[in-house]
Amino acid sequence: MTANGRPQAPLMTNTQADRVKEVARLAGRPSRSRRREFLAEGPQAAREAVRLHLGRVDAGADGVVVDVFATGEALARHDDLAALLASPDAPRLRRVTPEVLAAMSSTVTPQGFIAVCRFVDTSLDEVLASGPQLIAVLVGVRDPGNAGTIIRAADAAGAHAVILTGSSVDPYNPKTVRSTVGSLFHLPLVNGAQLEGLTDRLRGAGLTILAADGYGTTDLDELQDASASRRIGVTPEGIALRLDSQPAPPRGDTVRLEDPAAWLFGNEAQGLDDTVTEEADARVAVPIYGSAESLNVGTAATVCLYASARAQRES
Amino acid sequence: MTANGRPQAPLMTNTQADRVKEVARLAGRPSRSRRREFLAEGPQAAREAVRLHLGRVDAGADGVVVDVFATGEALARHDDLAALLASPDAPRLRRVTPEVLAAMSSTVTPQGFIAVCRFVDTSLDEVLASGPQLIAVLVGVRDPGNAGTIIRAADAAGAHAVILTGSSVDPYNPKTVRSTVGSLFHLPLVNGAQLEGLTDRLRGAGLTILAADGYGTTDLDELQDASASRRIGVTPEGIALRLDSQPAPPRGDTVRLEDPAAWLFGNEAQGLDDTVTEEADARVAVPIYGSAESLNVGTAATVCLYASARAQRES
Repeated sequence: MTANGRPQAPLMTNTQADRVKEVARLAGRPSRSRRREFLAEGPQAAREAVRLHLGRVDAGADGVVVDVFATGEALARHDDLAALLASPDAPRLRRVTPEVLAAMSSTVTPQGFIAVCRFVDTSLDEVLASGPQLIAVLVGVRDPGNAGTIIRAADAAGAHAVILTGSSVDPYNPKTVRSTVGSLFHLPLVNGAQLEGLTDRLRGAGLTILAADGYGTTDLDELQDASASRRIGVTPEGIALRLDSQPAPPRGDTVRLEDPAAWLFGNEAQGLDDTVTEEADARVAVPIYGSAESLNVGTAATVCLYASARAQRES
Repeated sequence: MTANGRPQAPLMTNTQADRVKEVARLAGRPSRSRRREFLAEGPQAAREAVRLHLGRVDAGADGVVVDVFATGEALARHDDLAALLASPDAPRLRRVTPEVLAAMSSTVTPQGFIAVCRFVDTSLDEVLASGPQLIAVLVGVRDPGNAGTIIRAADAAGAHAVILTGSSVDPYNPKTVRSTVGSLFHLPLVNGAQLEGLTDRLRGAGLTILAADGYGTTDLDELQDASASRRIGVTPEGIALRLDSQPAPPRGDTVRLEDPAAWLFGNEAQGLDDTVTEEADARVAVPIYGSAESLNVGTAATVCLYASARAQRES
């Protein structure tokens, strides 16, 4: 018997077992789509998956973790996770040899843990009904690492949800899951959202639509200055005069960074399509002070989301 | 004859040629270290390498590019780069078949251009003598992509130099070069800097030492607030009272974000060593508003460098 009163299953040693192959196939999209399951690899992702699972079960909902596979060595090293897995509502834990874990894993360094999880995404309706103040929308972001970075940054900035349009990378791609470092389990995710009508729906929920666009005509710094000046009761012109003897152009007046917002982030190579930026309330550029031609989309998204979060929290 | 008056070399078609193997070996560190040369792959990196080369030759210095290898198709597609390569001081251009380019390349998608470049790093003395206002220091950053992201973000934020300590990843690693997207050629780089005595040298050059540290006791937002309040002549307490009925703790008083600064960024897993953070003027944390445990070091670096750049430009 184990600590949670269930009989302990035998150690899995057969790298050729059907279940091992089944888990390994979740590295590929066809198998993920068919089973609506994905891999959370490594102790951090597995821990966050188990935490979400326990929270949902505690709230009377279905859990998200089907199975946790772990080596004895990893369980000994991560005793906090081992303790979580010993709680009564924990998902099933299967102990495996390092060889079995490696055969299941999509990575060369699985770090001793793989959680097989059910898809965690929710619907756009549900997200919009929750009164979100800050949302990140990925419109055709194709690189798994960039998508993961944005999900992690959205979580860090306290965003309320992340929406991926159908043209974006699969958030359940193992590389994306890894690069979210657990954040995939922290905030609501909408996957495969239809682009058509999306900005109308977001605006209908009270969100200002900000398109992150390196060629945008609205400067993020100016939005931040205008927001700060409203907060402390000085006119933007007052600040501008102190900053620079030339008066600042009257930009950033139409959108307010402290207002609830949905940020749109586009494809790595092409950026956002004109048809999308035209629907936005502003096309906002992160200023480039040096010689770089542009910022990586994950990096730009972090700067934009933090700017909104800061303005919203201080207003 | 080519446009720059040199005889056009024959098309390289032999994937087994010594020069092809020599170039391919530059993907590995031993060969790079021995030859003090590295690969800049793809049109963007090659363009920035050639631009730096032309700028240096124009200033009477040695160029940085040894050879540019390109396919005819890529030259036709990137006529701006082809034009640069036709100028009198351009480095030697060798036309190659796609097969030869693939055999030389470290990536599966070399996009038609490879520039073989001489190491571009400079000395710490030279950087400090230039009166830098903003420097990024990588202390044991190991992931090539993260290092590249930080170099690109430093460039975008208008930093004056990037310093890598000896424990950091090789900036000439093809993955790092790729992820700088040309920024490696935009700002001075010090490679393999000795950690011992480094903070003293930086401080001696008038730089405040800021350690980016998720567990730091100084909040980046508070530094930004304090900086903004000095700029517009309101006391930090005045702002704090408007923000929140509880007075803010007296943090961020010792360092000023608008002052010249060197930011230290640490290892992905271990962060910065205590011996390093103890030498810093402040240990600064990017606030986490949501549930994320931490930020990726490249992401955190971007937020920190932009915060400094913004404060410096507006002061």
